[in-house]
Amino acid sequence: MNSKGRVTIPTDIDVIEQTKEIAALWGADAVRDCDGTDFPQELKDSGLKVYSTYYTTRKDNEWAKQNPDEIQQMYIITPLVTAVSDRLQIILMKGLYPDMLKPNSHDDIKRWWEVIDRTTGKTVPTDQWSYDEETTTVELVSIAFHEYTVSFLAYILWDPVHMYNAVINVWKDVEHQMTFDVRQPKTHAYTMKRLRRFIEEHPYVDVLRFTTFFHQFTLIFDEKAREKYVDWFGYSASVSPYILDQFEKEQGYKFRPEFITDQGFYNNQYRIPSREYMDFIRFQNREVTKIVREMVDITHSYGKEAMMFLGDHWIGTEPYMDEFKTIGLDAVVGSVGNGATLRLISDIEGVKYTEGRFLPYFFPDTFHEGGDPVKEAKINWVTARRAILRKPIDRIGYGGYLKLAAEFPEFVEYVESVCNEFRELYANIKDTKPYCVKRVAVLNCWGKMRSWGNHMVHHAIYYPQNYSYFGVIEALSGAPFDVSFISFDDIRNDPDILKKIDVIINVGDADTAQSGGQWWCEPDIIEPISRFVYEGGGIIGVGEPTAHQSEGHFFQLSNVFGVDEERNFTLGYDKYNWEEHDHFITEDVSGDIDFGEGKKNIYAFEGTEILVQRDKNVQLAVNVFGSGRAVYISGLPYSFENSRMLYRAILWSAGAEGEIHKWFSDNYNVEVHAYPENGKYCVVNNTYESQHTRVYKGDGSSFDVDLEANQIIWHEI
Amino acid sequence: MNSKGRVTIPTDIDVIEQTKEIAALWGADAVRDCDGTDFPQELKDSGLKVYSTYYTTRKDNEWAKQNPDEIQQMYIITPLVTAVSDRLQIILMKGLYPDMLKPNSHDDIKRWWEVIDRTTGKTVPTDQWSYDEETTTVELVSIAFHEYTVSFLAYILWDPVHMYNAVINVWKDVEHQMTFDVRQPKTHAYTMKRLRRFIEEHPYVDVLRFTTFFHQFTLIFDEKAREKYVDWFGYSASVSPYILDQFEKEQGYKFRPEFITDQGFYNNQYRIPSREYMDFIRFQNREVTKIVREMVDITHSYGKEAMMFLGDHWIGTEPYMDEFKTIGLDAVVGSVGNGATLRLISDIEGVKYTEGRFLPYFFPDTFHEGGDPVKEAKINWVTARRAILRKPIDRIGYGGYLKLAAEFPEFVEYVESVCNEFRELYANIKDTKPYCVKRVAVLNCWGKMRSWGNHMVHHAIYYPQNYSYFGVIEALSGAPFDVSFISFDDIRNDPDILKKIDVIINVGDADTAQSGGQWWCEPDIIEPISRFVYEGGGIIGVGEPTAHQSEGHFFQLSNVFGVDEERNFTLGYDKYNWEEHDHFITEDVSGDIDFGEGKKNIYAFEGTEILVQRDKNVQLAVNVFGSGRAVYISGLPYSFENSRMLYRAILWSAGAEGEIHKWFSDNYNVEVHAYPENGKYCVVNNTYESQHTRVYKGDGSSFDVDLEANQIIWHEI
Repeated sequence: MNSKGRVTIPTDIDVIEQTKEIAALWGADAVRDCDGTDFPQELKDSGLKVYSTYYTTRKDNEWAKQNPDEIQQMYIITPLVTAVSDRLQIILMKGLYPDMLKPNSHDDIKRWWEVIDRTTGKTVPTDQWSYDEETTTVELVSIAFHEYTVSFLAYILWDPVHMYNAVINVWKDVEHQMTFDVRQPKTHAYTMKRLRRFIEEHPYVDVLRFTTFFHQFTLIFDEKAREKYVDWFGYSASVSPYILDQFEKEQGYKFRPEFITDQGFYNNQYRIPSREYMDFIRFQNREVTKIVREMVDITHSYGKEAMMFLGDHWIGTEPYMDEFKTIGLDAVVGSVGNGATLRLISDIEGVKYTEGRFLPYFFPDTFHEGGDPVKEAKINWVTARRAILRKPIDRIGYGGYLKLAAEFPEFVEYVESVCNEFRELYANIKDTKPYCVKRVAVLNCWGKMRSWGNHMVHHAIYYPQNYSYFGVIEALSGAPFDVSFISFDDIRNDPDILKKIDVIINVGDADTAQSGGQWWCEPDIIEPISRFVYEGGGIIGVGEPTAHQSEGHFFQLSNVFGVDEERNFTLGYDKYNWEEHDHFITEDVSGDIDFGEGKKNIYAFEGTEILVQRDKNVQLAVNVFGSGRAVYISGLPYSFENSRMLYRAILWSAGAEGEIHKWFSDNYNVEVHAYPENGKYCVVNNTYESQHTRVYKGDGSSFDVDLEANQIIWHEI
Repeated sequence: MNSKGRVTIPTDIDVIEQTKEIAALWGADAVRDCDGTDFPQELKDSGLKVYSTYYTTRKDNEWAKQNPDEIQQMYIITPLVTAVSDRLQIILMKGLYPDMLKPNSHDDIKRWWEVIDRTTGKTVPTDQWSYDEETTTVELVSIAFHEYTVSFLAYILWDPVHMYNAVINVWKDVEHQMTFDVRQPKTHAYTMKRLRRFIEEHPYVDVLRFTTFFHQFTLIFDEKAREKYVDWFGYSASVSPYILDQFEKEQGYKFRPEFITDQGFYNNQYRIPSREYMDFIRFQNREVTKIVREMVDITHSYGKEAMMFLGDHWIGTEPYMDEFKTIGLDAVVGSVGNGATLRLISDIEGVKYTEGRFLPYFFPDTFHEGGDPVKEAKINWVTARRAILRKPIDRIGYGGYLKLAAEFPEFVEYVESVCNEFRELYANIKDTKPYCVKRVAVLNCWGKMRSWGNHMVHHAIYYPQNYSYFGVIEALSGAPFDVSFISFDDIRNDPDILKKIDVIINVGDADTAQSGGQWWCEPDIIEPISRFVYEGGGIIGVGEPTAHQSEGHFFQLSNVFGVDEERNFTLGYDKYNWEEHDHFITEDVSGDIDFGEGKKNIYAFEGTEILVQRDKNVQLAVNVFGSGRAVYISGLPYSFENSRMLYRAILWSAGAEGEIHKWFSDNYNVEVHAYPENGKYCVVNNTYESQHTRVYKGDGSSFDVDLEANQIIWHEI
């Protein structure tokens, strides 16, 4: 196959010929610039669609310097500092990169800053602290041996992503790009003029690739320019007195820094969101999308397309919140780190097309002598392909310095095959709904608004504490289920949403937003979910599902799961149920199951069927509750074997073991996806070795097949 | 050496000759009967002191049957039972041994029972439930999918210890001994008469070995007669309407079953005790000791000694509570399972002597063909000896069927050596205070009242969840420190008690009575302890010390320890401090340190010195706080190597590294104990192999020595 289209490549002024060659080879139909590269005028008539990155909040230091009061701001919280007498000094800039941030003492610090005694949780009265601007020091009246924090506003004098790119690429003598706040009227007006001017000055640009809109996710560097704190979902850098005044007026209650820096933490994916934080997120999305819509309208008025980069300054334009669809964006592009981040892009509604930027990024960290970009590309593609087969993005693309990639001919060749394979599968499955075995809902505090992203800290980054849970999300991203993400609020508002679900999944550590914490002490939640299972529904809990210490149990649905965690309070009970049983769920397991970090101290009630326990720590167990079924899993890192086990767990919990031999491969390294609407199905080898399997079709008939490494074979139904 | 005395052996009617032989061999000067054995009249003039077990609350079924309303009672709580409609039936006796318990519906069940909705935590109004006596079923008006418990009073128709002995020894056709409540006036009066009668009818008895007084620790069996629940410290079986009425009157507030079965749990060592539970414990000790004093006075009036067995019905006579000393008991005897249980006996004040009952008990579970009682005896003796060398018991003894022991000549021979060794060391150290390097206080919710016992569930029993913490207590039981146990209340009432302490130790899992939970959010606690360290004190935290999730940290003294636990809320922070350092504390470590269960997710702050981390989970770290020092250890099972590490940690945290070469053995398998008051010291090999070591004397001078397995060598200073 030698098709064309659906592929975007980066370019630069020094790779004009290579751009043309690689575009021809890969069938690329679009080119783009990147942070640190420039578009070569020579390519403007090459027939390639031209994307241009556009930075709404930076790359205009002149404006920033003229309007220092409209430079963007963020809330920073100091570490807890211990007083040892009745006076305490806290240096705000300690541990922060000095060129990046500057405390905002221009606005009323007594109104916008907060000094809190973390030993008592009480706010220190504003007349008991003062600020010395020169040393960035807050001095306060303290109680000896209490700990204190200061939450303060700081100007963002160096855009964190620009700083990151400058540091990682060792850019010398580059002027630090300052950020300005498009929300404030003066900069707002200027920004719209600036956008028009840019479009007018770049007539060859077809697509404005906004990178991104107005507010950067939380990203801070320490005094050694090392990353200090990151939260891809954090709203800390989306604030200013102007914005907060507006928030107060709209909500009718006083804003506190503590809404953002919750209990001494930066608010993040793991914190159970407070009402105020949710109010703030919703407010921000309403206000940001309003201004984004203006920019999109301007873009359209020039006949150009508006594309949003899902990253960097994406705060306030969350694609799974209601406002997003109203913006009128043409496209979203995002980085694909795995199956879940692919779905994070491809499931977005309300745009004409989506594009995935694949890895590796053409940066010297991978493209250097001795580097192996092909390996990284293969892993990236095969991982993403599982998810694409469930819900395709419309385009793929690459970023970085093309000249680096051009020096690796094997890489160029491999990506050619990827582009062709992508176009083939896209042609086969676009606009059809793949066959879904069951409807599965992941239940947590975030629900739909954080679809696919709710187990991430930073985009697609591994953390030892989350991979055993994120594995569930990754497995689902390429599994034949109708996957939705629901919140406790959703259930409280309308318990009938459970009627559209076959299996609920609750995944995470106790007392986090992922598992739900004290939500499980709400009868409004316990009753409908228990009833759902009792009347025949399935539930799968991973880690510490439904856990919150209260009233004689830790797992609040220990009655449903048939297991609970020994928190020492029931050590006095003798526990006799430790026998392991064979089960439908573990039928494809060969050796020891990898539960990742797993959990200790889980024990089973009498009558619960244990499938795996290790040293009397239950890792996998099933229980019948009324007409429904529950599965407990201690952890589930992503692997093909675990993915299969989750598949079986979902089928079993839904009482649908009989349906397993339907669009199924008996070798778990191979998957089958069916598209009944257009009469196709494919058999796909997810591994880098050849595989043999028996494939079961929709009618249960089967045949044997051998697949080459990574091979995908398309069939007519 | 062939001394005599300080040893008690069991006897029975069928072992008269063996009793004489073994008494001569072991130098025993006392004999005793046991549950299931009888004293042979033939021995009454043998010159041996005669102990007789005396059961105040059982072995008189006639009385019990005549007074069924004065049979003892206990609070039982059912498991959580899920309602699936608006009516729920809970069968009270489900899962309980039918011959042991009978729900008390004689007294007003609406007053003494409690039905609680554990989904909401609310008590179900008494008019919404009823009880069917025949089926022991409570039927209640329920909310579908809420969970309910019933806390109810039940008569104890078979004494749990009698049942345990009957089951383990397969006693056939034995009449179940019922228990009667000595607290109630009728039985009270009868009991005093019964005691007088017993003494009068057994003139040859010298010592009444009370087994014990009135209330059994919590011990329940399931329908298969297996142990169901045990708590050696539990007060659940010390209740009756009579007692509870008295409690209410004295305290001035209404009693609730929930004071005993706290939040659905039986109250136990791990639950942070509520004010009401503490009130109840104190009340019980006051009331029980009053009646015990009567019995002791009667005993004395006949010229006999009164000895208390520390176990079985010991609830209400806690030896470390204030009332105990006022009783006037002559002696306490208790089972020695390890060093901590030895100290549990030997540290008791207010009696003339203490006696340790050593293991193995002469029961068929050890003394059978192929059994190895010598091995068990060796381990028991060597483990206990460490503690005896710090604070000796006054006598040792054995229990069970002597005829079983007599069949194992090697055992008889080994115990002979133990008896001789005990008499020798007793002669050397009695009534002197051993040299103590530092004053160490274990801080938890129980403090002094649970000295040495505060990390136990059941007496000296291993639990996977506690051995990593109990190891600290065991190590301390034989270490050259002045060890005390203090409570948070002690500090709140008088912070100056910290002036008498060099090092505080806080050990346990988060939110347990051992580590303290929400106590660490009290400024009254945080301030003095922080100041104590800041001004030069030492603190050692093991497991999750000072942990309670609140205000930006989990370890509330994370500032002091320099470490905290990652509970996901700070995953976004990059953590750069992972380098391991050599240190004084680990100087004697050879291979990998055994942290037992250890902890995951502990990370160190900048500036904290990590000694051991595993896969970026800190296991051992030290931190300087002001003039003081803190040590964090993830877990510390008992071993000679770990005991040494704790020794070094205590010295380092107290700033006393320079004092290490004082009464010290450089081989940690060998210990040195000095008794300056009487000019002696000993070098003791704790292992079953020969050892070489260098011994440092009090002046720092040293010499090398070889020791045989288990050897103890006495020197003059």
